Amino acid sequence: MIISHIASPADVKALDRSELPTLCQEIRQAILASSAAVGGHVAPNLGAIELECALHRVFSSPHDKIIFDVSHQTYAHKMLTGRADAFCDPAHYLEVSGFSNPLESEHDLFAMGHTSTSVGLALGMAYARDLAHETHDVIAVIGDGSLSGGLAFEGLDNAADLASGLIIIVNDNDHSIAENHGGLYRNLALLRESKGRAQDNYFRTLGLDYRYLDDGNDVLALVDALEELHGIDHPVVLHVRTVKGMGYAPAEADPEGWHHVGPFDLATGAREPRKPVAPHANYAELTASCLVSAMERDPRVVAVSAATPYIMGFTPERRAQAGRQFLDVGIAEEHAVTLVTALAAGGAKPVLGIYGTFLQRAYDELWHDLCLNAAPATILVYGSSVFGTTDQTHLGYFDIAMLGDMPGLRYLAPTNPEEYTAMLSWSLEQREMPVAIRVPVVSAPAPADGPACDDAAFDTPAYQVVRSGSKIAVLALGDFFDLGAQVADEIERRSGKRATLVNPRFITGLDHACLQRLSRTHDLIVTIEDGVLEGGWGEKVARYLGPLGTRVRCFGVHAGFPDRYDPQELLAHDGMTVDAMATEALRLCEGSAS
Amino acid sequence: MIISHIASPADVKALDRSELPTLCQEIRQAILASSAAVGGHVAPNLGAIELECALHRVFSSPHDKIIFDVSHQTYAHKMLTGRADAFCDPAHYLEVSGFSNPLESEHDLFAMGHTSTSVGLALGMAYARDLAHETHDVIAVIGDGSLSGGLAFEGLDNAADLASGLIIIVNDNDHSIAENHGGLYRNLALLRESKGRAQDNYFRTLGLDYRYLDDGNDVLALVDALEELHGIDHPVVLHVRTVKGMGYAPAEADPEGWHHVGPFDLATGAREPRKPVAPHANYAELTASCLVSAMERDPRVVAVSAATPYIMGFTPERRAQAGRQFLDVGIAEEHAVTLVTALAAGGAKPVLGIYGTFLQRAYDELWHDLCLNAAPATILVYGSSVFGTTDQTHLGYFDIAMLGDMPGLRYLAPTNPEEYTAMLSWSLEQREMPVAIRVPVVSAPAPADGPACDDAAFDTPAYQVVRSGSKIAVLALGDFFDLGAQVADEIERRSGKRATLVNPRFITGLDHACLQRLSRTHDLIVTIEDGVLEGGWGEKVARYLGPLGTRVRCFGVHAGFPDRYDPQELLAHDGMTVDAMATEALRLCEGSAS
Repeated sequence: MIISHIASPADVKALDRSELPTLCQEIRQAILASSAAVGGHVAPNLGAIELECALHRVFSSPHDKIIFDVSHQTYAHKMLTGRADAFCDPAHYLEVSGFSNPLESEHDLFAMGHTSTSVGLALGMAYARDLAHETHDVIAVIGDGSLSGGLAFEGLDNAADLASGLIIIVNDNDHSIAENHGGLYRNLALLRESKGRAQDNYFRTLGLDYRYLDDGNDVLALVDALEELHGIDHPVVLHVRTVKGMGYAPAEADPEGWHHVGPFDLATGAREPRKPVAPHANYAELTASCLVSAMERDPRVVAVSAATPYIMGFTPERRAQAGRQFLDVGIAEEHAVTLVTALAAGGAKPVLGIYGTFLQRAYDELWHDLCLNAAPATILVYGSSVFGTTDQTHLGYFDIAMLGDMPGLRYLAPTNPEEYTAMLSWSLEQREMPVAIRVPVVSAPAPADGPACDDAAFDTPAYQVVRSGSKIAVLALGDFFDLGAQVADEIERRSGKRATLVNPRFITGLDHACLQRLSRTHDLIVTIEDGVLEGGWGEKVARYLGPLGTRVRCFGVHAGFPDRYDPQELLAHDGMTVDAMATEALRLCEGSAS
Repeated sequence: MIISHIASPADVKALDRSELPTLCQEIRQAILASSAAVGGHVAPNLGAIELECALHRVFSSPHDKIIFDVSHQTYAHKMLTGRADAFCDPAHYLEVSGFSNPLESEHDLFAMGHTSTSVGLALGMAYARDLAHETHDVIAVIGDGSLSGGLAFEGLDNAADLASGLIIIVNDNDHSIAENHGGLYRNLALLRESKGRAQDNYFRTLGLDYRYLDDGNDVLALVDALEELHGIDHPVVLHVRTVKGMGYAPAEADPEGWHHVGPFDLATGAREPRKPVAPHANYAELTASCLVSAMERDPRVVAVSAATPYIMGFTPERRAQAGRQFLDVGIAEEHAVTLVTALAAGGAKPVLGIYGTFLQRAYDELWHDLCLNAAPATILVYGSSVFGTTDQTHLGYFDIAMLGDMPGLRYLAPTNPEEYTAMLSWSLEQREMPVAIRVPVVSAPAPADGPACDDAAFDTPAYQVVRSGSKIAVLALGDFFDLGAQVADEIERRSGKRATLVNPRFITGLDHACLQRLSRTHDLIVTIEDGVLEGGWGEKVARYLGPLGTRVRCFGVHAGFPDRYDPQELLAHDGMTVDAMATEALRLCEGSAS
């Protein structure tokens, strides 16, 4: 095995050129075997093996700087930079992150996982190099899917102004996660068909030099093409055609399905069915069935996605069925929010389904377009929970802090499927305000005395007192309602006193009357939320009750970037176990009485 | 006068075609006369008169939908849609907003003021039209400067997928506010030089049909070109060359200087010197002089701007002097933040100067690039105050809520020039964390016993107790420190008891020891900030002190979109006069004692 002798990029350089194809095949087998065991971004990685191998053959990382967009396709890069064990040795599977991680290796320059950042990052590194009068190469590797993000465009446009060397490799496998959307992709297709010679060339219109390589899975051709760019004195794009899923027939046949998979059978490609994230409810299916029936009743209902249609249950079949009433704008979250603003203003009933972590791209569009114009669009925020994605790059629990100060936005936190569908139905009918709904991630079955959804309207903040008690009131938001109920139970078990339990339902807008009443009749108000403490919902309650001198204890997680954490450990670290919260509440309540 | 007979676009249609040039000249004279009296966006508006006149001649607003990017160039549009008095009659000057405003007119479809939104908004309106089976035209008018914003790219890219009509007019005057930056502008220049026939065409690479009109200040040529697009069945770009400042020699000669001006002498073009926003300190000059001297000492210091170099004092002369150590990326705020992340990671010392309202575009880049990578870049946040821009589109006081939950970001609030320069100097030297500094807008002279800047490091949150007192502690943040000092004075005057006065200096990070101490020794903690209450700094204090049962009263303004407000009235509305705050504090303090 050649790969077992590769401890660093220097070892790739030391190989005989003729050994490179074999090395690539070994890497491919290792990626397939390890992914079959533990899952992974199979198709993107299979397509990029030869490119990453050629990069480390030609350039000298970390002296030369290589930055991979999104960085979910860097398995080969990791194997060639001292981390082969994590793919070759089952005992070490899962030891490395699925993304670029500077804590893992000096060859990983940035922690990253969102799209379209690589060109700007590479430009910054190149500019810093020039300020320091250094001379190394800087290389950005960006997939075609990431090019639809406005940030990538801004980077390319600005890169053309650089008076020194910068290499931008466009790894074009003709796919986003799903199919690409946008006129640019017709230009990329023309460029592929014409072998780079089409009349109109997107990259050249941005002022960039341009080269084309048709077989981006031929490692020797790649080495030759990259050798020509080594030490270049101006910004250049090398457009490389690769095959997503290269070398594994099931992935080549269904690159969308094989973008990211769980464990599978290597021989047959048979995959284990995915475990649903929320064990007691499938909110993707629930959303799709709600929206499809709303679409049938009203032709103005339109579901909008920014390249992740599956989160809202829009399978290829449902997309086809919805026709014009489903719109995927591609990886373009900013535009998605501006678009739904105008759809709503134009009389349509748009529903944008989006991961909270990606909605961050659209903060200004939420503020300046959607909220300033009070456009009655609906945004479904997915994955927003400490139980969502646990990679530091994709933390989903900053949404409350982000959306909580948007003027006029109604942000709702349902606790269960009935509440969720009631809120979605209400939002589709109202024309007064923009509405966001935090789709539950943790969804426990409603307790026997849990919240019943007795409201059909969510115009005015109205908290739901689920159980009345004394001394301590527990206000537990959204998908942490069940956790709050357990805390209330534990308080009762220990103290013999029944605690009040409240389902606030509204993230924006306080129920002043309810809070005043609770404050007068309780010694302690406890807030529990599945989000960051700083700028979160609990702080609003604490601020409102501050002048009354009521004790308030807010539970949430501290803002930070934990990586591949265990959610229960994270909660425990911030004192959010049932036991710790009950103990703290009782301690504060005693303090209050004394 | 023709203009006096124009009450709506129907009157423009009823004119004899030969009267249109005269109408344009009348509009030009009115814009010049009114701007000379009260100031305005002179140069952009002078260039767009013929285009707006032709639009209302050919299309039928509001049946047809016309959306102007940024909308600061819509004076002629306003005059042709029933609002001519606001430009022709001095008694009505300033009666209309400087931006598109749906509350003013059904011909203004969206409230807007940030760049690059128009294509996405128009696409949404067109898509909503199709869902409703309607047939009107939808037109976006976007300036060349706005094209560098990634949001505009995302809109253009997605527009190409529309299977029906959409008209995108590129009003190309070859200028952003300052000169344009980015490779795209070389393509626009090629297209202008070749009369639209250059080989590589940016708009065609995005899949859009394309037309070119060379004399965009010839109203009859414009009418002819637009007539051809009326009722078009697919997305099309009409690229129109106009002259910024057209018809007024001083503005044609210096379009950057005449982008937005205060009152001026119409005959000579002599302008009144601008009143500095902060009467006691010129932070633009202070920033530039700090940075220029830092640049001389250290070649790695680099000032970065996203098309507003003047806010950080970088005049054309200083830009030239700084050479490579000054970098304007154009209107591309997202990219600016990603770029400074990599500059810092690459060993440079980047300082990005940016308006808070525009920094909103880069929320995700702040989170995912800058903070996740703990890159030691410095961001200077300008105009963040209720005393900043008072247009609802450009409110600058949401920054604390936006930045307050960014993990690992040190956000500092200096109260005066010395603190500001100390913080900036410290930030340039440290390599541990990203730093943002809220540049004061209201800067009163420091009171005799005001804060002295005795610190040279801002690693650890440390509040400064400026006066020690009892009962009430007033914590007054940043440029509201002086307001807090007045509240403390008033409390003492009325109660005879000296209040404690604290300069917190740190927006992110609480000084736990100080807060604990204040809580033990005072009956009431008052927080005062020049920002929104929801998600603001005071809420963090209230949350921290919540478990102690200390009374906390947070003062800030409520999240909303007040338009062209009087800052003192806004503060009064939220109980933030000195009198109201002192009264409230004393009332709560008595409540506490009883």
